[in-house]
Amino acid sequence: VHINNVNEMDYESFIEVFGNVIEHCSLCAAAVWRYRPFKDVRQVHEEICKFVDELPEAGREGILRSHPDLAGRLAGLGLLTDESKREQAAAGLGHLTPEEIARIQEMNAQYRKQFGFPFVICARQNKKEAILEGLKTRIKNSPQAELAKGIAEVKKICYLRLLDIVEHEGIESRL
Amino acid sequence: VHINNVNEMDYESFIEVFGNVIEHCSLCAAAVWRYRPFKDVRQVHEEICKFVDELPEAGREGILRSHPDLAGRLAGLGLLTDESKREQAAAGLGHLTPEEIARIQEMNAQYRKQFGFPFVICARQNKKEAILEGLKTRIKNSPQAELAKGIAEVKKICYLRLLDIVEHEGIESRL
Repeated sequence: VHINNVNEMDYESFIEVFGNVIEHCSLCAAAVWRYRPFKDVRQVHEEICKFVDELPEAGREGILRSHPDLAGRLAGLGLLTDESKREQAAAGLGHLTPEEIARIQEMNAQYRKQFGFPFVICARQNKKEAILEGLKTRIKNSPQAELAKGIAEVKKICYLRLLDIVEHEGIESRL
Repeated sequence: VHINNVNEMDYESFIEVFGNVIEHCSLCAAAVWRYRPFKDVRQVHEEICKFVDELPEAGREGILRSHPDLAGRLAGLGLLTDESKREQAAAGLGHLTPEEIARIQEMNAQYRKQFGFPFVICARQNKKEAILEGLKTRIKNSPQAELAKGIAEVKKICYLRLLDIVEHEGIESRL
């Protein structure tokens, strides 16, 4: 849709369209509704990022926790959101060997145990090798560093989801 | 469930059970997960309230916006969450005359236009007369006062929803 149409949406339509640009956190879209009219898709993204940055730390952790494991239980059961399903497929996670799935799930479990939130990475900008590598190296980081890194990935995921929704001729598709 | 069982829940179960204690804002439950083990249901409520109070103002507005209108379009279409359905019924909103429905919807629309968020009141503690009266008087308040009032009602709604879920012998059921 064109940004002008976004600005004309009523609240319910806005949430229907943008409610999942931050996975399972429609409160983020609900919060930035006050900033309409938006100049362009970048401004929508900027307001969401600003809101996320101003959350108490527990809220940023909550955002990470709202994300599914990559190649995890929900993926196996076909219970991912449409957005996550597409993104995990784009990373090649739909074609893993049983051994690779077991390896990722084991590392995800370790990561989650260590940090209290799941490993989050922008799957559309990382193929499965990069994801495995990320799990291996990021698990050595401090909790603070991983909270910041995970949230940075959430913002990239959000931007790509926004570009899927809003027309963006002339706007950088890479952050 | 007993609070001990709550403390033993894995994250997915916790969100399934508590995700809607703040209407459509599972981020609130996701955020307070870090405070386990909880002593009792009151502590769950206190942590959620603290999280809500620490949100940027846009976030508190977003919480109000995530609530449905009383006797509104979604109620008419049967599209409310189970919790809202029960609460609106408890207030007697299931037995309104067409004239009463029209009156409430008109006042809801005025309120929403004036404040940018819907009129929120704890329906289980207010019968339809009190709700109509509330709409009439609260619409005269300042936006700041109504944001605060609406959030105070959200906290009451949340507490009653928590009491529906968690065993609470010996704990005040009124805030």
